[in-house]
Amino acid sequence: MEQGTILLSHGSGGRMSHDLIREVFFRHFDNPVLSRGTDAALLEGWEGPLAFTTDAYVVSPLFFPGGDIGRLAVSGTVNDLAVAGARPLALSASFILEEGLSLEELERVVRSMAATAREAGVRIVTGDTKVVDHGSCDRIFITTSGIGRLEERHRSISLGSEVRPGDKVVVSGWLGDHGVAVLAARENLSVAGAVVSDVSPLNRMIADVLDQGVRVRFMRDPTRGGVATLLNELARMTSLGILLEEEALPVREEVKNICEVFGYDPLYLANEGKVVMVVPAAEAGRALSVLQEHPAGAAAAIIGTITDDHPGRVVMQTAIGGRRIVEMLAGEQLPRIC
Amino acid sequence: MEQGTILLSHGSGGRMSHDLIREVFFRHFDNPVLSRGTDAALLEGWEGPLAFTTDAYVVSPLFFPGGDIGRLAVSGTVNDLAVAGARPLALSASFILEEGLSLEELERVVRSMAATAREAGVRIVTGDTKVVDHGSCDRIFITTSGIGRLEERHRSISLGSEVRPGDKVVVSGWLGDHGVAVLAARENLSVAGAVVSDVSPLNRMIADVLDQGVRVRFMRDPTRGGVATLLNELARMTSLGILLEEEALPVREEVKNICEVFGYDPLYLANEGKVVMVVPAAEAGRALSVLQEHPAGAAAAIIGTITDDHPGRVVMQTAIGGRRIVEMLAGEQLPRIC
Repeated sequence: MEQGTILLSHGSGGRMSHDLIREVFFRHFDNPVLSRGTDAALLEGWEGPLAFTTDAYVVSPLFFPGGDIGRLAVSGTVNDLAVAGARPLALSASFILEEGLSLEELERVVRSMAATAREAGVRIVTGDTKVVDHGSCDRIFITTSGIGRLEERHRSISLGSEVRPGDKVVVSGWLGDHGVAVLAARENLSVAGAVVSDVSPLNRMIADVLDQGVRVRFMRDPTRGGVATLLNELARMTSLGILLEEEALPVREEVKNICEVFGYDPLYLANEGKVVMVVPAAEAGRALSVLQEHPAGAAAAIIGTITDDHPGRVVMQTAIGGRRIVEMLAGEQLPRIC
Repeated sequence: MEQGTILLSHGSGGRMSHDLIREVFFRHFDNPVLSRGTDAALLEGWEGPLAFTTDAYVVSPLFFPGGDIGRLAVSGTVNDLAVAGARPLALSASFILEEGLSLEELERVVRSMAATAREAGVRIVTGDTKVVDHGSCDRIFITTSGIGRLEERHRSISLGSEVRPGDKVVVSGWLGDHGVAVLAARENLSVAGAVVSDVSPLNRMIADVLDQGVRVRFMRDPTRGGVATLLNELARMTSLGILLEEEALPVREEVKNICEVFGYDPLYLANEGKVVMVVPAAEAGRALSVLQEHPAGAAAAIIGTITDDHPGRVVMQTAIGGRRIVEMLAGEQLPRIC
């Protein structure tokens, strides 16, 4: 199936659709729920609350240092469930393909999705494929949705309702790697050669933190809009302030350099394999040490504190001793970053 | 919010994304689960098996007689759950928007989705919006996913494992209306003016059939590829034959005429508000009468019989007395029909 190109008839719903589905999707995503070929996947035995999420992926280019749109589409949705405190149980995958796309390229993406799903321990149980005429989309767009099982005691993690002044803000590692890696791939920047995307499923690392009993009071992944936008959302949701320590932010030298050249701020750059957690001050050290046991969390750091001051605002204590307000991302930094 | 156009920064994840989400999506899809603004929706109290489905919608044009991409995106996913025997409980909606799209047009689509969701009694609880540069997609693509609660006794409906020789094949009404309506909109056909798409959520009608105790042994909606493709899938799944009666097929005169002009066969045309059911012969009359109580089922008809003959094959008893094999759709009839 690696030869040939995508034709409009691959989206017809007829024989060519069937063959594509069986020879590419079923083969790589191989699991009994998907292979039944029903329009809706049948999932067994559920109880208690569920988390349900969706994301469209339109990243350009499709392949970039450290990842590709397939790895992104699985990791992003797995992570949206994991940061809600849920255990990812099943994903759907919906493809919009451009007529003329090479099957080899499609299969490369699908293989990457399958490998990432195995890494995360989650199955892709249902899907859809549409083909649009040449020029009506940019090669491959993927939408994944996911369902996760949510334990009652973790229900408030995505709501932020338990966040209290004095709590610590923890980030699981280097900021901005994904943004810089995509930028580098797009602009052919050799200077950024060492930076690869952090795109990765984080559910095992996050489950480890929760299982070790760390009381995570809020968690979200700093994707589009970066850490700055995420923390502004949290400050608004809680009507509390957040004080960041510039010196504590984990940013690679290469990323700093690129940001200086392009006028970007690492706080606004997208990450695809990072999590921001808010935990009680007394548990921040333990959260750090659990995170640091995982490769994706090796550079985890405490970057700030929740405060009663400046409610609804994120303020940065700068390296040179001043303070400045950190706003939500206002315009667009890098389009089609995810 | 009805003025202006979509800019790349509406997809940034920053302030403009927030404003768009709040002023367009939250406003129209208004419900407490969505409005929490978490990345994953939190759904309460589940038990037992679930159905999970996804579909991408890329129909062109966005607006056609009888419907639009928004009504299609909600109906299609609701119907995929309903034909699996499940009660739709929650939908996700993921948008890929082209830079330069008018906000008025987006809002028209979103309003239509909201109205269709209300009609179906289902909530859109989570979503995502990406914006791609002008020329990288065709105005609006939507992917919806859905979760439904599946009663244990309906588990086999999508699998077809209970289908037996002698069972009757029932279709809920006129075939090919959606295909012809989209074709007419695309080609500016005045001759087809009277035909409007059947796009509609069918979950209430289907629930009525199930609740009245009709033992539905298989159910699916004949969308892309039409009734011919669906029945070929069923014949393969069950290794049984299907004998269709050409004279029993409900096809409008206008649709027949268009098909003659364009060389189409109504059996292969897409429907977006029809269901094919297989029921025991003794219950076919009752299934019909329940369907016919609903506007969407007014023209319901028994169109064929499951048989031991020609296993894996669909055969048509023609109006002039002959028999011919009905194959699965081989190429493409109408691209971007849904």
